[in-house]
Amino acid sequence: MFQALRETGALFLWNEIMSNIKKAAILGASGYTGVEVIRLLQHHPKLEISALTGHSRAGERAGDVFANTAHLGLPDLQDWQEVNWPDIDVAFACLPHGASQETIAEILPHVPTVVDLSADFRLRDPELYSKVYGRPHNFPDILEEAVYGLSEWARESLREAKLIACPGCFPTCTLLPLLPLLKDELIETSSLPISAITGVTGAGRKASLGLTYTELAEGAHAYGVGSHRHAPEIDQIIERVTGQKTNVSLTPHLVPMNRGMITTTVVKLKEPNTYNELRESLKATYQDSKFITVLPEGDIPQTRHVRGSNRCHMNVFRDRTAGTAIVIAVIDNLTKGSSGQAIQNYNLSQGWEENLGLDIIGFFP
Amino acid sequence: MFQALRETGALFLWNEIMSNIKKAAILGASGYTGVEVIRLLQHHPKLEISALTGHSRAGERAGDVFANTAHLGLPDLQDWQEVNWPDIDVAFACLPHGASQETIAEILPHVPTVVDLSADFRLRDPELYSKVYGRPHNFPDILEEAVYGLSEWARESLREAKLIACPGCFPTCTLLPLLPLLKDELIETSSLPISAITGVTGAGRKASLGLTYTELAEGAHAYGVGSHRHAPEIDQIIERVTGQKTNVSLTPHLVPMNRGMITTTVVKLKEPNTYNELRESLKATYQDSKFITVLPEGDIPQTRHVRGSNRCHMNVFRDRTAGTAIVIAVIDNLTKGSSGQAIQNYNLSQGWEENLGLDIIGFFP
Amino acid sequence: MFQALRETGALFLWNEIMSNIKKAAILGASGYTGVEVIRLLQHHPKLEISALTGHSRAGERAGDVFANTAHLGLPDLQDWQEVNWPDIDVAFACLPHGASQETIAEILPHVPTVVDLSADFRLRDPELYSKVYGRPHNFPDILEEAVYGLSEWARESLREAKLIACPGCFPTCTLLPLLPLLKDELIETSSLPISAITGVTGAGRKASLGLTYTELAEGAHAYGVGSHRHAPEIDQIIERVTGQKTNVSLTPHLVPMNRGMITTTVVKLKEPNTYNELRESLKATYQDSKFITVLPEGDIPQTRHVRGSNRCHMNVFRDRTAGTAIVIAVIDNLTKGSSGQAIQNYNLSQGWEENLGLDIIGFFP
Amino acid sequence: MFQALRETGALFLWNEIMSNIKKAAILGASGYTGVEVIRLLQHHPKLEISALTGHSRAGERAGDVFANTAHLGLPDLQDWQEVNWPDIDVAFACLPHGASQETIAEILPHVPTVVDLSADFRLRDPELYSKVYGRPHNFPDILEEAVYGLSEWARESLREAKLIACPGCFPTCTLLPLLPLLKDELIETSSLPISAITGVTGAGRKASLGLTYTELAEGAHAYGVGSHRHAPEIDQIIERVTGQKTNVSLTPHLVPMNRGMITTTVVKLKEPNTYNELRESLKATYQDSKFITVLPEGDIPQTRHVRGSNRCHMNVFRDRTAGTAIVIAVIDNLTKGSSGQAIQNYNLSQGWEENLGLDIIGFFP
Repeated sequence: MFQALRETGALFLWNEIMSNIKKAAILGASGYTGVEVIRLLQHHPKLEISALTGHSRAGERAGDVFANTAHLGLPDLQDWQEVNWPDIDVAFACLPHGASQETIAEILPHVPTVVDLSADFRLRDPELYSKVYGRPHNFPDILEEAVYGLSEWARESLREAKLIACPGCFPTCTLLPLLPLLKDELIETSSLPISAITGVTGAGRKASLGLTYTELAEGAHAYGVGSHRHAPEIDQIIERVTGQKTNVSLTPHLVPMNRGMITTTVVKLKEPNTYNELRESLKATYQDSKFITVLPEGDIPQTRHVRGSNRCHMNVFRDRTAGTAIVIAVIDNLTKGSSGQAIQNYNLSQGWEENLGLDIIGFFP
Repeated sequence: MFQALRETGALFLWNEIMSNIKKAAILGASGYTGVEVIRLLQHHPKLEISALTGHSRAGERAGDVFANTAHLGLPDLQDWQEVNWPDIDVAFACLPHGASQETIAEILPHVPTVVDLSADFRLRDPELYSKVYGRPHNFPDILEEAVYGLSEWARESLREAKLIACPGCFPTCTLLPLLPLLKDELIETSSLPISAITGVTGAGRKASLGLTYTELAEGAHAYGVGSHRHAPEIDQIIERVTGQKTNVSLTPHLVPMNRGMITTTVVKLKEPNTYNELRESLKATYQDSKFITVLPEGDIPQTRHVRGSNRCHMNVFRDRTAGTAIVIAVIDNLTKGSSGQAIQNYNLSQGWEENLGLDIIGFFP
Repeated sequence: MFQALRETGALFLWNEIMSNIKKAAILGASGYTGVEVIRLLQHHPKLEISALTGHSRAGERAGDVFANTAHLGLPDLQDWQEVNWPDIDVAFACLPHGASQETIAEILPHVPTVVDLSADFRLRDPELYSKVYGRPHNFPDILEEAVYGLSEWARESLREAKLIACPGCFPTCTLLPLLPLLKDELIETSSLPISAITGVTGAGRKASLGLTYTELAEGAHAYGVGSHRHAPEIDQIIERVTGQKTNVSLTPHLVPMNRGMITTTVVKLKEPNTYNELRESLKATYQDSKFITVLPEGDIPQTRHVRGSNRCHMNVFRDRTAGTAIVIAVIDNLTKGSSGQAIQNYNLSQGWEENLGLDIIGFFP
Repeated sequence: MFQALRETGALFLWNEIMSNIKKAAILGASGYTGVEVIRLLQHHPKLEISALTGHSRAGERAGDVFANTAHLGLPDLQDWQEVNWPDIDVAFACLPHGASQETIAEILPHVPTVVDLSADFRLRDPELYSKVYGRPHNFPDILEEAVYGLSEWARESLREAKLIACPGCFPTCTLLPLLPLLKDELIETSSLPISAITGVTGAGRKASLGLTYTELAEGAHAYGVGSHRHAPEIDQIIERVTGQKTNVSLTPHLVPMNRGMITTTVVKLKEPNTYNELRESLKATYQDSKFITVLPEGDIPQTRHVRGSNRCHMNVFRDRTAGTAIVIAVIDNLTKGSSGQAIQNYNLSQGWEENLGLDIIGFFP
């Protein structure tokens, strides 16, 4: 595209466009959500990467950390303290929780926008945070100003947001299909058993015996049973959006694939609603959403069809008994579940079209 | 072992043992449950393979159909009509449903015991069969005499059984953890949302685009949503064993691994029962069962730990809300979920110890 | 990007760009190389998809054939006879060999450019074709005008080419590292043992027992041993480019991954050359090639770093004995090994920059 | 089997057998070769496990280290110093090199037989060891008495061996097919380019970023290029067995599967030999070997067919040119490539049949 423009000789226009390019810093660029931001920004017409940070790997070239980026001419990794912050328009914070709040507290005064991909600013209540994450929240003041960025449900509040808390992957994949049904009062709040499947990238990039190929290949298992940290986050947003109190049951399962997430929820219909109303609710809610597809009746979502894209495929199915239905949604945990939604949120904060730079299709096969 | 015996020169004893060896025919030996029976019988001291059948591959050597068996000196595959049935003590029928009932009706008069791994004799009611499998059941008389072989719950009825209907893999993995809880009246019957994960061998061995590596690797999806054929089978057995009517919700998911199955069920406790009673019920029920392990408190079952074995690992977990709990079980769908349980059932039918030949540990890594 | 342009109101410029967009037809769009062309053209500023054909699936929507493309507004699949050929600027033929030559013979008079991804126009000699592919070549006249499109070695001949024969994946991954060494007369031609590894997509999209997940997962095997069809193609190009006759030994191995290819060749150095000259030859040859990276000394190429990109990573290593060296290259068999190189070739045929629309980084993790 | 015996009431015989059971200690039981010895000994009629050691996990239950063994009643892990050595008949040392020699030096005086699975006693020359492994060999005296246990080529020397050095996996998979051809002087020694593929278990069980699922899935790469430690070991054995000096080229590739190994070697025939002589040589050499199958002409070995078994499948193929041939062999790197061969060697050392306890077929699917 850039070449095409240059070739036309429209230098004036070219310069105007380039002068509007925003500069991004990626904090924690040596992790998987970090490199996913790098991958996605490759095609973003209004964002360029100006700084990469990575505490343990500061001083290394980007290509040493992720060999697929070696030819891009990216900046070397550095400590976040060394970044020339006045030069930065937006920081994508891809840091572990705990570290994220500490760093963001420091840089927030110096950067127009911070998009946090960690869990640190998702829970509005610092006491709940402390209970769920086993550490105090040290910045309740900042917490208050964070905008929870489930993009499709936060377009207004994201506009000109300064600190954006991107949702967890399970909440994203759960709330997108359930919020319309709850808001339209089609289903009961008393029983929301969510069974989820996730790929291994969700566990991050780290040397851990439990994450080795040999321990994970050719097998599956649940984890965080009865206590996954994303369950309170889901309840919080359901209440905020619909005013209804819930106590969802969330059981994630880890299976041998790199990317991908499914949530399957058995919902009880409020009488006299039927399956048809559920489908209509989803279709009406998302008819203008660029990334969400309510599949044709009967089509079952597959994670591989959204792999590497910012898309969510969903559908609702009749169950064996009249009063229940099954709601299924899939995303790529690294993209719509993390880095893609982060960029979508930044687009919205700037008043840009939300799919700017994100119109990539699922990577299949 | 055989060598050891021979070396001692105990020829008399040796001869006596050998004269008690039963002869097995495997029908449908070119499929995965067929070769799994072959694999398991390798170590069975009282069973030897005398015939292999396979309609489409009749005339081929076993080693051409499954190269891992080439050195075993197995009989060639033949049409089932060519088997010398008076010579056979037991037929393991590893055929597709439909074909299975037709074949079994023919051979049943000529063989002391038939162990059916298909779905054809699982549902007691021929009309239900017809509705679920989309074809009539042509042998309702035979249906009546079939013993449903969920081994741990059918030890008595299996004794001297002539026709054994082995349970489906999902029913096995669901009923083993739920039956004790239902029988002990610890949980509600009104809400049983079962989410299941299975490996690809469950779909059988066939040329199908949807089963190719490229279509399945690095992705996951649900299937049979709202209508899986194993759901009525689960209801039937719950009613038979506990007298309680249910309408379970079963959503299976296919993930990229060859073997393994998880069922995760969110159960509602009958007041005033607690999580502790659930655990005690499972432990008490299975304390003498050789293949079932109720894991230590908090330990999460993993399919890879039972891969290739006839074992079932299970556990129960507190959920976020007091009145619910999460029940998880894992099996190998080909072993305890099919061919292993078939052999276990035959052992029981003969009055042998049920673990005869089946004491193999999970194949890991 | 398009939005950005529209927003600036530069309608005049916009119209000029759009009027220069070429229209592409993809023949055989229901296969993996077909959908890979679709994926890559998403970001091409000068090409748009106007027609998709697929014999067995004519009449279906693109989203039914590849669910990841459902939201793109692609044309439905049709028979190639139904395409409005005068409207098409370029046809990417992703057909099986045999079918490809027949179809191309029909459409070539009506389309400015045909890029053939099949094997039908790779071998210049129709008798060799007949011997290797077991069928006659019916269009020797057309064969003569085909340009063999190993992009980096055919930039001149591709300019204004009408029929482009894209190389096989193994030849691409073998010739790119070996041609410089042979051309610079650094290595012997008498011994070129090439061991290769490929992902499963190389076998195409078809229902085949041998390609099922269960038959391929957790195992590896060689195939086409001593007789792979790509070996004569490699010899042909070595001779054409360097004038040297060879008889390469090529042993491909199939391993459980969707995409990716490695070639490892043990080369004998012509005295008095050393390993250093090999490295310098590769670096000098490809210093201006946008898609080829000669890795830093000692770094080993990994397929995952080029997955989904049009890139080739290569390196050369000292072996244990002074007179030999090991040459390793990796590509994505579907991208640089097929659909990506096809687009690169079309770019070159039009005098565009060769990386137009292809600047995507490896999809990792 | 045991039940069968008990049932016959042959108590006298039973007691005699049991009194001949040897007691095994497994050193380093928390690694993959350790648990593989455990798995295989399950069915060994003359060996039982009396002690398990594991430095970092001493005090843990076996089931905590490998959950698949939880029900076996195995001894807890302990420090090797705590083992009651006078009670032990054989130690299987599954330790890292370096640690292995130190431990073995201590226990060798107290145990009748030590089977070392590490690299510490494979290279006869301590200076070569020091050069290859980057550390001195501290026990050259012990080194001299070690018997190199490539079972099929060491049956005589293994008889009553006290210290057995089990070969590396690559040497096993390379030497088995090449030794007959070299010994029969059918192929040249000057050019032996070996390309190998291995599963991930070969790297051991450890927390390492490079071994995580996310870094290894869906990709492949070579490693140890030009310098793999097993190359000098291969040369050493070729010279010892055939008197011929070689300088093999070995390039291993890591691919996403847990177990399995292929070696593919392009050999040059000594005139006037032909491919037929190669096949005859392999068949004649191994006609009485219980674990080695020379496949039917044209059949290509697949790792999945020997997975979990102690078998080696091999074959030889015509290459495109008359004077060369391609030799391919497959093993399971953990079984015939390590723990299985270790037990086979102990069997031979005791004068037992070499396949005692090892007659298990490949685990497929």
